[in-house]
Amino acid sequence: MSQPAQPNPTAAIIVIGDEILSGRTKDKNIGWLAEQLGAMGITLHEARIIPDIKQVIIDTVLDLSARCDLVFTSGGIGPTHDDITTDAIAAAFGKQVIRHPEAEAVLQKHYQNTDLEFNAARQKMADIPKDATLIDNPLSAAPGFILENVHVLPGVPSILQAMFEGLASRLPGGVVMTRITVQCATGEGTIATILANVQAAHNGISIGSYPWFKPGNFGTAVVISGLDEAVAEQAAEAVATAVKATGADAFIVAAGDTA
Amino acid sequence: MSQPAQPNPTAAIIVIGDEILSGRTKDKNIGWLAEQLGAMGITLHEARIIPDIKQVIIDTVLDLSARCDLVFTSGGIGPTHDDITTDAIAAAFGKQVIRHPEAEAVLQKHYQNTDLEFNAARQKMADIPKDATLIDNPLSAAPGFILENVHVLPGVPSILQAMFEGLASRLPGGVVMTRITVQCATGEGTIATILANVQAAHNGISIGSYPWFKPGNFGTAVVISGLDEAVAEQAAEAVATAVKATGADAFIVAAGDTA
Repeated sequence: MSQPAQPNPTAAIIVIGDEILSGRTKDKNIGWLAEQLGAMGITLHEARIIPDIKQVIIDTVLDLSARCDLVFTSGGIGPTHDDITTDAIAAAFGKQVIRHPEAEAVLQKHYQNTDLEFNAARQKMADIPKDATLIDNPLSAAPGFILENVHVLPGVPSILQAMFEGLASRLPGGVVMTRITVQCATGEGTIATILANVQAAHNGISIGSYPWFKPGNFGTAVVISGLDEAVAEQAAEAVATAVKATGADAFIVAAGDTA
Repeated sequence: MSQPAQPNPTAAIIVIGDEILSGRTKDKNIGWLAEQLGAMGITLHEARIIPDIKQVIIDTVLDLSARCDLVFTSGGIGPTHDDITTDAIAAAFGKQVIRHPEAEAVLQKHYQNTDLEFNAARQKMADIPKDATLIDNPLSAAPGFILENVHVLPGVPSILQAMFEGLASRLPGGVVMTRITVQCATGEGTIATILANVQAAHNGISIGSYPWFKPGNFGTAVVISGLDEAVAEQAAEAVATAVKATGADAFIVAAGDTA
């Protein structure tokens, strides 16, 4: 008996930090996480960058937590006064913040091996919402946590990435999308009707078109994505055939590429 | 009697595009716009990346348009079937989409100079919500628009940046700068030294350069900005004269344009 098709899990990313909104720091976490989630077959539905304001964090987390299967936050879990993510997420779900014994032990051990004092500010990083599950931090010890469907990660890209690597295998994976690129030696506007027709004729695929220009040359990369590999391949063939019929060159560069 | 202090205007950015959420394309517009707005004294309150889904665009635009003084969107205004931003924003404000005569004339003229047909798909880029104000596109002609407090820009970073340069001095909180464009029929790398020399020789101006390519043709739009109109005009003349001395055509397209 065949299983009913499960839709892919959905996700949202919330980047928390005034320094991103001011333009001083450029966010690198959305693009990186988007790529990881895509490769795992998890559909990223939305990403938001919000300020370090407790009520904004609470509202945003509750909104996206209700609408997506998984939420990932980045930023605001360090030792300083402006790190308010933990408090805000605990408040969002009506949980107390407790000094977490396991987190405290890990941090204590970490600071014993350094010249740094495990002072009150650093101890704050062991404060975790009650009932949360810790996310291991292989780089700098201070853990993240999971509360409900919200996965709380730090803002520093290298630490976020190392922590996500350990987290990834716990996440529900979807079916990885098949993505096929058809390189077309013609302008986007010339093949717009072809793309609309091919998309309409093939169920469950979506077609994006990305024009590119360089001196003396131009073209359009057409990306066909879909859960059903065979249908995506048929759609790619249909695009290539129809574009060639206009007199322009077209070739499939990544048939069967599921990355 | 002194005026009461005005709080800084607030802004939100909405990046519209499945290709950003899938991780295939990394967003560059949020960081760039955040920096520009910050330098102008406009407070960026939130940035969102959302999918190409009409109802999501409508809901997001209405939400942020009500909560912020200024909204900027990026993406989804090209010629293909997945470019639905214009329709969605018109629908959000209960406006019809009309074939805009000025936009149509600009596009028609643009495509006359190319091998590309001004076909139905490309004509779609002249469709603008009723009562919207056009935003000039010095690179690829297809205009953006302003409807209510929403500023609709394309997704390609170089085009978005060139269009924002022209828009910036119209925004509240922005210092009113003189901006002059010099269109140069040559590559950016060829005139880099000229631009550096002209900038060094003229106090208080800054020079941006935006290379553009179309089939069989390419050039560089040089944008000179400064608080002192006379100095900006001298710098524009200096750029045009020096570029012409290399044998390439150059002409000032917007002397004294403070828009």
